[in-house]
Amino acid sequence: MAMLARQVQLVEYPVGEVTPDHFVTVEVEVPDPQPGQVLVRNTFTSVDPGMRLRLRRSGPAGYFNSFPLNAAMDDIWAVGEVIESRAEGFSAGDSVWHAKGWRDYAIVTAGEPALAGIATLARLDTSVAPAEKYLGPLGAMGVTAYAGIIDAAELRDGDVVWVSAAAGAVGSLAAQIAKLRGHRVIGSAGSAEKVRYLLDELGLDAAFSYREGPVLDRLREAAPDGIDVYFDNVGGDHLEAALATLRPWGRAALCGAISEYESVGPAAGPSNLFQATANNLTLRGFRGSAYQHRLPDVVRELGGWLAEGRLVYRETVIDGLERAPEALMRVLSGDTTGKALVRVG
Amino acid sequence: MAMLARQVQLVEYPVGEVTPDHFVTVEVEVPDPQPGQVLVRNTFTSVDPGMRLRLRRSGPAGYFNSFPLNAAMDDIWAVGEVIESRAEGFSAGDSVWHAKGWRDYAIVTAGEPALAGIATLARLDTSVAPAEKYLGPLGAMGVTAYAGIIDAAELRDGDVVWVSAAAGAVGSLAAQIAKLRGHRVIGSAGSAEKVRYLLDELGLDAAFSYREGPVLDRLREAAPDGIDVYFDNVGGDHLEAALATLRPWGRAALCGAISEYESVGPAAGPSNLFQATANNLTLRGFRGSAYQHRLPDVVRELGGWLAEGRLVYRETVIDGLERAPEALMRVLSGDTTGKALVRVG
Repeated sequence: MAMLARQVQLVEYPVGEVTPDHFVTVEVEVPDPQPGQVLVRNTFTSVDPGMRLRLRRSGPAGYFNSFPLNAAMDDIWAVGEVIESRAEGFSAGDSVWHAKGWRDYAIVTAGEPALAGIATLARLDTSVAPAEKYLGPLGAMGVTAYAGIIDAAELRDGDVVWVSAAAGAVGSLAAQIAKLRGHRVIGSAGSAEKVRYLLDELGLDAAFSYREGPVLDRLREAAPDGIDVYFDNVGGDHLEAALATLRPWGRAALCGAISEYESVGPAAGPSNLFQATANNLTLRGFRGSAYQHRLPDVVRELGGWLAEGRLVYRETVIDGLERAPEALMRVLSGDTTGKALVRVG
Repeated sequence: MAMLARQVQLVEYPVGEVTPDHFVTVEVEVPDPQPGQVLVRNTFTSVDPGMRLRLRRSGPAGYFNSFPLNAAMDDIWAVGEVIESRAEGFSAGDSVWHAKGWRDYAIVTAGEPALAGIATLARLDTSVAPAEKYLGPLGAMGVTAYAGIIDAAELRDGDVVWVSAAAGAVGSLAAQIAKLRGHRVIGSAGSAEKVRYLLDELGLDAAFSYREGPVLDRLREAAPDGIDVYFDNVGGDHLEAALATLRPWGRAALCGAISEYESVGPAAGPSNLFQATANNLTLRGFRGSAYQHRLPDVVRELGGWLAEGRLVYRETVIDGLERAPEALMRVLSGDTTGKALVRVG
C-alpha cells in the first residue's frame, strides 16, 4: 500500500543567489519496498555548500550531477530509521545513512551505488555517537577534512596551517585535526563571533575575519613567517593570499570555493598562480567521496577525540524539511556555524 | 692588469613587449682574478623565457631577483673556457659552466652560490657532448624537463601526456622523455612548421598549433579520451584546456606561463580551477633549480639517448653578444625552435 511522503524539489535553476522560491515541497507516493530495498524514515538530512554547484543546468564536469527540476533531489546524505526492510542485513529499527535526503521517507536499495559510485545504505553504530554525527565528523565531513589535511595537503611535522571557513563543518574539523596533531593553526571566518569561536572553543593559535580588511594583510599578521599548508574552502582572494604566503614546498588542499559558487559567470582563477612555480608549491584538489577508504581512520581518530571531549563539533539545526532551502541559503551566506542539518519532521 | 670586456645591461624595465632598446652593450673593466676566482671567456650564453619575469622592478616573490638597471645581469647560465685560474681544481683551458652570462669575459668565484643557492662554477666533460649542450639537455633545461615530468607530474605507466610549447627547449625534452619511456604524447606549439617538427622529428603521437582554433578543441581532437599529465609552459587558455581535459587523479606540472610573461597587469588564473576539486587533480609548480640533485639522472638518461641519436635537440643560435636582447625578444614571441643560445664573440 503506497504511502504519502514529502520531498523538496527544485523548480528553477537559480541565477546568482539561491532563495526558497527556487524550491517547492511536494507530496509524492512512496511505493512499498521491493526485495533488496528498505523504507527509511529520515530524521536528519544534510545541507552543504557544494550543493550550490548542482543547482545548475550543467555543473562542473566530473562533479556530481545537476539536480533535476521537479523531481527528487538525489545524492544528498541523510540518516534515519528503517521502518520496513526487505533487504538482507537490515531490520526495522536500524539506524542507517544513505543518499536520499531532502525527503521524509525514502525507499533505498541496499548496495546501489549513489554518491560517486559508493553504495551508501549502511547501518550506523549509535553507541559511538548519535546518528546525526554520521552526517558530520564521523561521515562525509570528517572524511573530507581528514583526506584534505592528511592526504591532499600531506601534513608534515612542523607545518604551519591555515584553514579558511574554519568555523564551517569541514573547516572546523580540518583545523582541529591539525591542532590536535600539534601544529600551529590559523583559522579564518566571516564574523567576529566566529573568530571568538575559533580561538576560545577550537583553541586555534590565531584567527581573523576576512570581513576586516584584505585577507592577505590579516593572514600576514597571523603568520608573519608564512604558512606551509592551506586548506581552501573559499577560493578567490583567499587562495591568492595563500599563494602569496605559502613557503617553499608548501601545499594547498582545494576542497571547494564557496566564494565562487553563486557567481554567474566563470570564476576568475588566482592571478598569482605563478607563485606555485616560483616556490615549488602543490595545489591538490580533492573530493571526500574519493577517500571513503579513510572512513575507518576517521571513526577511530575523530571518534576517539569526540569521545574524549577534545573535538568540538557545532551544528546548526534547522527544524522542518520544508526549511531545507532556507538552510542552504543560510549556509551559502555564511550565516551558520559548523555543520548545517535539517531535522526532518 | 685590468682588461676591457663587454656586457649587456638593462637600461629600462620594459612594460609589455621587450625590445632591444631596453638594453645596451657596454665595455667594462674586468679585474684580475683573486684567490679562489677564475677568469672565463664565455663561448655561449643562455636565453630563456623565464628571464622576462626578472625584467621587472619587482618580480614574483620567491623567484630569481629582478635584474638591476645599468649593471651586469647575473644568474644567467653560460659556458666558456677558463683563461686564468686562481681557484683550486680549475686550470686554464677547462670547459666550465657558471651563472655570469650575457658578457664575454667573466670573473667567477668557485663555490659561490648563484642561482637559487647553487654554486655554479663546474667543469664540464666535453667528451660526452660539446660544452653548449650543458646549457641544454645536460644542464638546466634537461633538469627542468626531467624534474617536471618525472617528479612534479609523477609520470606513471599508461599516462597520456600533453606538453605545451613542445618545440621549445624544455618542452621538447619533456615530451621526448615521456615518449622514450613509452607514453602517448601530444605536443602543441605555435606554427604549422613546429607541428611538423613535433610529429616528424620528435616522433610525438599527435600535435597541434594553438593558432589554429581554440586550444581546448584541438586538444580534444588529439586526446578524445582525455589526458593524465599536462606539462605547462604556457598558462592561460592552455592551462584551462588541461583542467577541462585531465582525467581523475591527473597531474599538471607548472613550469612557467610564457603567455603571461609580457602581460602588464596581473594575469588571470584559470577560470575552471574547480575542476581540480571535482576530479582530484594535482597542480604542482616547480623550478628546475630546486631539482639539481637530478642532474646525474639527467646526464645518464638524456646523455645516453643523445649519444644513441634517439633524443632530438634543436638549437637556435644567434651570433654576437650584442644580439642577446634580440634573441630574448624572439624567444618570447615564439620565433625560435628548441633552445636559444647566443654565441659570444
